[in-house]
Amino acid sequence: MQHDSSTPRLIVNTLPLNAEQRERFSQAANGIRQEFVNDPADLASMIWHAEFPAALRPETTAIIGNVPTADAAQCPRLEWLQTTSAGVDRYVAPGVLAERVAVTNATGAYGRTVSEHMFALMWALMKQLPEYTRNQAAHRWADEGEVLSPQGGAAVVIGTGDIGSCFAKLAKSVGMRTYGVRRNADQGADGIDEMYGFEDLDELLRLADVVAMAVPSTPQTHHLLDARRLGLLKSSAVVINAGRGDAIDPKALLHVLRDGGIRGAGLDVTEPEPLPADDPLWDEPHCLVTPHVAGGNHLAQTSEAIIAIALENVRRYASGEPFINRRR
Amino acid sequence: MQHDSSTPRLIVNTLPLNAEQRERFSQAANGIRQEFVNDPADLASMIWHAEFPAALRPETTAIIGNVPTADAAQCPRLEWLQTTSAGVDRYVAPGVLAERVAVTNATGAYGRTVSEHMFALMWALMKQLPEYTRNQAAHRWADEGEVLSPQGGAAVVIGTGDIGSCFAKLAKSVGMRTYGVRRNADQGADGIDEMYGFEDLDELLRLADVVAMAVPSTPQTHHLLDARRLGLLKSSAVVINAGRGDAIDPKALLHVLRDGGIRGAGLDVTEPEPLPADDPLWDEPHCLVTPHVAGGNHLAQTSEAIIAIALENVRRYASGEPFINRRR
Repeated sequence: MQHDSSTPRLIVNTLPLNAEQRERFSQAANGIRQEFVNDPADLASMIWHAEFPAALRPETTAIIGNVPTADAAQCPRLEWLQTTSAGVDRYVAPGVLAERVAVTNATGAYGRTVSEHMFALMWALMKQLPEYTRNQAAHRWADEGEVLSPQGGAAVVIGTGDIGSCFAKLAKSVGMRTYGVRRNADQGADGIDEMYGFEDLDELLRLADVVAMAVPSTPQTHHLLDARRLGLLKSSAVVINAGRGDAIDPKALLHVLRDGGIRGAGLDVTEPEPLPADDPLWDEPHCLVTPHVAGGNHLAQTSEAIIAIALENVRRYASGEPFINRRR
Repeated sequence: MQHDSSTPRLIVNTLPLNAEQRERFSQAANGIRQEFVNDPADLASMIWHAEFPAALRPETTAIIGNVPTADAAQCPRLEWLQTTSAGVDRYVAPGVLAERVAVTNATGAYGRTVSEHMFALMWALMKQLPEYTRNQAAHRWADEGEVLSPQGGAAVVIGTGDIGSCFAKLAKSVGMRTYGVRRNADQGADGIDEMYGFEDLDELLRLADVVAMAVPSTPQTHHLLDARRLGLLKSSAVVINAGRGDAIDPKALLHVLRDGGIRGAGLDVTEPEPLPADDPLWDEPHCLVTPHVAGGNHLAQTSEAIIAIALENVRRYASGEPFINRRR
């Protein structure tokens, strides 16, 4: 903590907290002034909004919440920013915040909600539920034939951070063998039976029953699944993407789906987003598209997890202990 | 075995077997004559057909497959019938087959396919996938709000035979606590944390996050979930039925869905079946209907399991050992 003890600190807390939660944050702050600037009603929003009164900015030393970068940049005494997101790219970009500002994130809060959404997409595709939902709309009682089971199959999880690891645990729990792919294959991850580096990706794709993608958007992951790699997959394979849309080449995906080269694709992220109304993937029967809703606050437990991380870091800010989830 | 050793036996095998599988059945029969009367191509059918040439009937002592009851009744020397179904009601009904005929079924082959389908319906409803599939048809990128998680929730499994037990194991594997309901509560079942009798059903419904129904159609289970019992459920509860359609009162279900009294219903079985084209449940947004496809041979592993049971019983028929899966 680079706190100058001669001046008082001010935490601006933008979380949508109820009275009982505010009381717990006040106790954690242990005498440090804390302004709660958000409406508890915003808790129900799928994405929390965070703005704070300009008048507080000169005195603000700590911010809880994903405030606009311009707002944060206007706090000359800022020491610490706690985000409600996993990503902190826009805050740690050069020139946005002074180098001395600590940035902590909410990694760990999203693994459950995103991985469960991926798991639901996987099951829906394996059991032909999109087809049956369309038949239902037409009041049509019709057998759509063969289904798949994950049991005994191979899940290849690309990106084995919090989300990939949580997905692997779910896949293992229903009898899949899990293969992880990460930059540093020497580092294991919960739920992953065997870890590999990207140099082994092609081999793994050949044996995959499910490919679960949770990689961030980087130059290395752009169109990671291109036409060539999609061509390595089994015709029964199911591909799930909930990381970043551009990790799959959408034109190549459309072709492999149309040719029956894979069984199906579940996409919570697309390239671009939102998916344009005239994009052909909307009408592809074996493609299930959800509009980037796996994360956010769609699951009540996510909000609770974010609040718990922020609360712990407020306590540490007050006591001078090192932060958890520090990214800078 | 009530076999009269003075006359030769004849097994009529209606399973759609390939050459390699036929060879294994021939070995198991250990010299007993066996006629394979079905086309291997029928293996791909979702429901296997089983008929056999009238000329064979006088000599037939054993039948493998769900032949028409009239065909089986025309086999005067019949000693044993192995069904490919779990249900044997029509074969053991009074007057259909002589009392001496042993009847064995395929219990154990369907637990996996039916329970997985129920599990997929549960996940789809919790994650709003029917809504997103409908939005996709309209090329609409729209956030449908809050979702649910099974983790930490309570699954009440009504009917804890093979299917209910398999469902309970899946539910437990993703962090649910499982409560079973069966006639004899003293008898446990795999995957069930706590077993109760039907006298405790009302109390269990009050705490249920998921109600999974896999009961056969009997007078006791007719409209087991009626308006009163549906009214006990939490507004976040999800009901799944893959047993028999008449275990839920469909009018009462429609009302509770329209009133928001429960979160959703996943029905693989309905009353009546097929669901008539003008039935209002087709259009109920929180009802996901599939056309009695959880079982059958939709999953390749089901066929393999049925074949394994039949193969074992052919071996036992030849060696004179007691059958497995004997129902009469």
